[in-house]
Amino acid sequence: MQANYTEIPFTWPQGFKADGVHAGLRQEKLDMGWLYSETPAAAAGVYTTNQFQAAPTKLTKQTINQQHQLQAIVLNSANANSCTGAQGEKDAQQMQQLAATKLGLSTALVGVASTGIIGELLPMKVIANGIAQLQLTDNHKVTTAVLTTDTHAKTVAVTCELAGKKITISGFCKGSGMIHPNMATMLGFVTTDAAIDGYLLQALLSQATDTTFNQITVDGDTSTNDMVTVLANGAAGNQPLTAGSADYATFTAAFTYVLGELAKKIAADGEGATKLVAVNVAGAWSDFEGQQVAKAIVGSNLVKAAIYGEDPNWGRIMVAIGQTNAHLDLSAVDVTLNDLPLIQASQAGSTEVTTLTKALAAKVITLNVELHNGTGHGQAWGCDLTYDYVKINATYHS
Amino acid sequence: MQANYTEIPFTWPQGFKADGVHAGLRQEKLDMGWLYSETPAAAAGVYTTNQFQAAPTKLTKQTINQQHQLQAIVLNSANANSCTGAQGEKDAQQMQQLAATKLGLSTALVGVASTGIIGELLPMKVIANGIAQLQLTDNHKVTTAVLTTDTHAKTVAVTCELAGKKITISGFCKGSGMIHPNMATMLGFVTTDAAIDGYLLQALLSQATDTTFNQITVDGDTSTNDMVTVLANGAAGNQPLTAGSADYATFTAAFTYVLGELAKKIAADGEGATKLVAVNVAGAWSDFEGQQVAKAIVGSNLVKAAIYGEDPNWGRIMVAIGQTNAHLDLSAVDVTLNDLPLIQASQAGSTEVTTLTKALAAKVITLNVELHNGTGHGQAWGCDLTYDYVKINATYHS
Repeated sequence: MQANYTEIPFTWPQGFKADGVHAGLRQEKLDMGWLYSETPAAAAGVYTTNQFQAAPTKLTKQTINQQHQLQAIVLNSANANSCTGAQGEKDAQQMQQLAATKLGLSTALVGVASTGIIGELLPMKVIANGIAQLQLTDNHKVTTAVLTTDTHAKTVAVTCELAGKKITISGFCKGSGMIHPNMATMLGFVTTDAAIDGYLLQALLSQATDTTFNQITVDGDTSTNDMVTVLANGAAGNQPLTAGSADYATFTAAFTYVLGELAKKIAADGEGATKLVAVNVAGAWSDFEGQQVAKAIVGSNLVKAAIYGEDPNWGRIMVAIGQTNAHLDLSAVDVTLNDLPLIQASQAGSTEVTTLTKALAAKVITLNVELHNGTGHGQAWGCDLTYDYVKINATYHS
Repeated sequence: MQANYTEIPFTWPQGFKADGVHAGLRQEKLDMGWLYSETPAAAAGVYTTNQFQAAPTKLTKQTINQQHQLQAIVLNSANANSCTGAQGEKDAQQMQQLAATKLGLSTALVGVASTGIIGELLPMKVIANGIAQLQLTDNHKVTTAVLTTDTHAKTVAVTCELAGKKITISGFCKGSGMIHPNMATMLGFVTTDAAIDGYLLQALLSQATDTTFNQITVDGDTSTNDMVTVLANGAAGNQPLTAGSADYATFTAAFTYVLGELAKKIAADGEGATKLVAVNVAGAWSDFEGQQVAKAIVGSNLVKAAIYGEDPNWGRIMVAIGQTNAHLDLSAVDVTLNDLPLIQASQAGSTEVTTLTKALAAKVITLNVELHNGTGHGQAWGCDLTYDYVKINATYHS
């Protein structure tokens, strides 16, 4: 299928403003920001399944669920406002109120997002100072202000035409560690000027998340603050999208591309990572099982360490596949590594070890898995396990 | 409850012989061994749930399942004979046959166990050479011959009285990496001179495994070769044990202690580990959920890295608990770290960070978790995540 959308340099869709500032939560880096739509936008969100949902995550979910509308989201890094009890809930509400007041909005139209250390109270004076500085600009500073141990901002923007109207979808996110999303993931923010109903947007987001953000892993840990939100303000002037239309199919493809690219950027910039690992599974019993097998491979510490060591230790891939409950033909598993036969009929493939070792020097390792047991497909993305992952996570707090 | 058994220096129970040799699979270290009972022994086994079960694991399972009897087990390290197809199955059978012939036994009484690299064929000449050298002795060399990246042998022996007869239970095992047992674990071997029916022994082993070997994790990966076997030859002369008797209760406690100690030794000697992490959960909805929560904590890469870094980053423990499906009172989680309050009512505990940091210098970190949500208990054991874990697993193959 030819894509009906085009990737463009990052930009805000029509009618969106944003900003990022240094409030003082971090030593020097940008640490607060916001996103604003000139009119109320249809809004949707997916949220962590971790039972200890952070205060801002709960508040944003509650706010969006009122009428699937938002006009602004205010965010901070360095402090997750998670496991902070009743005071944490008050602080999230106050952050929402401060942003709403400054923007002249009802709090019912303002979302809140936080990421960083768990278990410390938000320094509310610093937060208030940050909100006081925020302006409505066209800059992209918010895409940096949201980062924690990420090494760079993660953004993607595409454009497509819906019945003659040009629309833009722009997404940014933060990832790095504690990444093993389940129904939602880390912080992701998508804006579009397309016109679409909030409930339809919610259905689309939930569906697209399953094959994108939910298929990445860095370390198997699901954060308390995971959240992806989408704001669609309709400024592009298209006819509101309806499910089943050709325009909806075009929008779905473009939207899913944006989520998939953001997800891959998170995997590639996993804490300490030196390589992106992409797994494509075919021949699975079902798509669900294909996704399950793909995620098991990118989630295996042993596979991840072998890839870091550029060691074609393929038995570990078999171990990862075999510990799923997927239906398998045990003697029919084929795997290629960057197109070289690595495993054939569940045994060592025909490629020389020295050739495989050389291939493993690449920055992107693609494993194509053929299970010969059905027509299901699945994809997942992860990264290698390195000394630096351990270093970052042994010393993050202190 | 007072224990009715006593730990003793490692020894073989009455009527058992063993040996270990250097066959040539490894450069210098012992790499083959066997265990032998002077009479056919009741036998039981638990085996990996990985779908790609290795040839020796399948063969031993099939052999034990015939009549729950074995008289010998032959083993090798350095090569797992896993993912080796039809030739691998023939090789496991030949290894069984060679040992049976030398011992003058039917192959139906001989088990086979292998551990090491996955996906390479066993060098059968070396195996035959090893079996030719093996003798029936009282030495403990087999407990070393089974090791791979383990740093030391893992053994435990206890004695107790059953109706006036002194019986001994002796166990040894290998662990280190690819440790996340599910229904069974790595290689564990338990011998006893108690008299007990093979089917009763099987029931006891399956039950005791659930709270011992199945509650440890090093890296979340379930090997293709995991297996624990027990041989009970009745040489102690006790009345055969019957379920429900006082003697059976004594034997169960002693047997479960042996399995638990072996499991802990595997966790403490996990690849690259510097610390044993023990988690005790109380107040869970059920014992199952208590075990689930305990295993989630020891299985979290982020918790493990923080413990390595001696960083009291307690939010990561909350994340691990919250990502289970266990019933939780979200505001009532208490956790102590080596008896210091770390988390109280789901928020930061009263202990100073500097005090916690000092406590984390210990070699054994015990986390006592109180969920205040029922009467269920659970325990699990793991280790920290270190640079050396990554190093060992980035370079194991080459």
